[in-house]
Amino acid sequence: MEHDLPAVLSLDIGGTKLAAGVVTGDGLIHGWQVTPTRREEGPRPVLTRLFDLGRKAVAEAGVPEVAAVGISCGGPLDTTAGVLECPPHLPGWIDIPIVALATETFGVPAALENDATAAALGEFRYGAGRGTSTMVYLTISTGVGGGSVIGGRLHRGAAGNGGELGHVMVRPGGRKCSCGRRGCLEAYASGTSIAERAREALAAGRPSSLSALALPTAEDVSRAAEAGDPLAIEVWDETTWALGTALTDLVNAFEPELVVLGGGVTRSGARLLDPVAAAVARDAMPPAARAARFTLAELGDGVCVVGAGAVAHDLLTGAAR
Amino acid sequence: MEHDLPAVLSLDIGGTKLAAGVVTGDGLIHGWQVTPTRREEGPRPVLTRLFDLGRKAVAEAGVPEVAAVGISCGGPLDTTAGVLECPPHLPGWIDIPIVALATETFGVPAALENDATAAALGEFRYGAGRGTSTMVYLTISTGVGGGSVIGGRLHRGAAGNGGELGHVMVRPGGRKCSCGRRGCLEAYASGTSIAERAREALAAGRPSSLSALALPTAEDVSRAAEAGDPLAIEVWDETTWALGTALTDLVNAFEPELVVLGGGVTRSGARLLDPVAAAVARDAMPPAARAARFTLAELGDGVCVVGAGAVAHDLLTGAAR
Repeated sequence: MEHDLPAVLSLDIGGTKLAAGVVTGDGLIHGWQVTPTRREEGPRPVLTRLFDLGRKAVAEAGVPEVAAVGISCGGPLDTTAGVLECPPHLPGWIDIPIVALATETFGVPAALENDATAAALGEFRYGAGRGTSTMVYLTISTGVGGGSVIGGRLHRGAAGNGGELGHVMVRPGGRKCSCGRRGCLEAYASGTSIAERAREALAAGRPSSLSALALPTAEDVSRAAEAGDPLAIEVWDETTWALGTALTDLVNAFEPELVVLGGGVTRSGARLLDPVAAAVARDAMPPAARAARFTLAELGDGVCVVGAGAVAHDLLTGAAR
Repeated sequence: MEHDLPAVLSLDIGGTKLAAGVVTGDGLIHGWQVTPTRREEGPRPVLTRLFDLGRKAVAEAGVPEVAAVGISCGGPLDTTAGVLECPPHLPGWIDIPIVALATETFGVPAALENDATAAALGEFRYGAGRGTSTMVYLTISTGVGGGSVIGGRLHRGAAGNGGELGHVMVRPGGRKCSCGRRGCLEAYASGTSIAERAREALAAGRPSSLSALALPTAEDVSRAAEAGDPLAIEVWDETTWALGTALTDLVNAFEPELVVLGGGVTRSGARLLDPVAAAVARDAMPPAARAARFTLAELGDGVCVVGAGAVAHDLLTGAAR
């Protein structure tokens, strides 16, 4: 059935990169384009470049036309009105009617989705979640986001952001989070936090192989932990502890059959996945723990483009929103 | 449409009480019966009395026949197989094929549901959740349980227990919970815990008006808090803090339009509801916080019987399980 779906255009608006691609019914990306966002230019020039990027993707994909446009962007956004409200990764972008602008530009219907929610749909339909019915997806990257599919349908929620899974509380009163609260999952598991905690410990004079680096990144911490560096191991263990704690709550709440972990930090593979899965198996309620498998995401850097394509396909087929 | 649904028999198996009633398509209970469980007698005599109670409900309801049987019971249970696995409130009940036994006894199809999940469906279809699409329900009683409706459908989860919402973590390393972990919502918000914490403080010599009582209950604590007793206020504030913390996570995760609080502890009404709603409004992500209304449950003591009736109706209409 899916292969009968027409080609659609996907646009992904990130804080550092814009991406565009044509997605066909088999979930493949054609004519994939990426360019820096240069958000400091403000919404108008960036949107002009985004739509130009979309036209280029259509031209390079070699399709005669696209039937719809799917757009993914970080929240908060209003998916019903198709408006970007005030995404923190795009300072100064206030109430941008992105769906109306895209519809006008491309002459076809358009739909907007939270990027992590779109990614969840992408992994569900074309990636690690294929064939499942209830799935929780986390993306662990600069920040932490996520989405869920429940009973085969993307969960969008009453506010249309489909669940703010990066803001599950893991340590009340703990580290300050980008959302303003303290102790959220994102404040411990994001790549930003991993690097920050390592730098704080170095600044406090803790000895570590990481002190040879000017600005150690999350990836440096992961590699140093693998090599046995005690400070890096400590930071890494706190990261997997936070993910295990949050996912225990999410597995108890959603009882998914599959948990998919994606985003840059998951390039560490089993070193991230295994301790997290073990913590949930130990701490979640036994029936929920037994039901939940853990796996790494499959769609890599293209996940939001594939996901936004799936959102556009849902718009065309009238799938429940 | 619902009024065209046939009469069904509902059976609710609690640790202290058995209940039965005939539920019609309008969600009303007819011939409602309640009797002590006397679980120490073991499964066979208790089930005999449960089925007798069901026959009595049918006779008193004055309906010619029932089209299905819905059964609600505390988990863990296997809703697909229709088996009670090992409910902690019914010690010694191991792998009871309750659906097969009910089908044999009443000669009609039967379905089993976790009691808090069934209650969520009851409140959604006939109580406080009427007309909503996405709803989270918590029952705060001897223990804490819950369920959710997502996009108009009861969320059952891959393990069939529909979410273990009483076991969201609120204080890592905190009080021991009935589930074996520490710091779960249930360990702070259940009526059992409210009474226990008050008794512990009294035993430690804390002065309080509660010391005049032999064994203060959760209701006593609520009343003393209202009267200004400092110890009772402290216990009550910790209770609403725990509920606010857990519901912030649940509102972030599910983005419901409505949160319904039921169970004996909610007889305290606004004294429970208001501080919990205020905490979520303050702490949840703004779009999710704005979308979520808070209200008290409407179905009272009959909620599990009504909910099990709705489960039986879903069985007949083939609603997605």
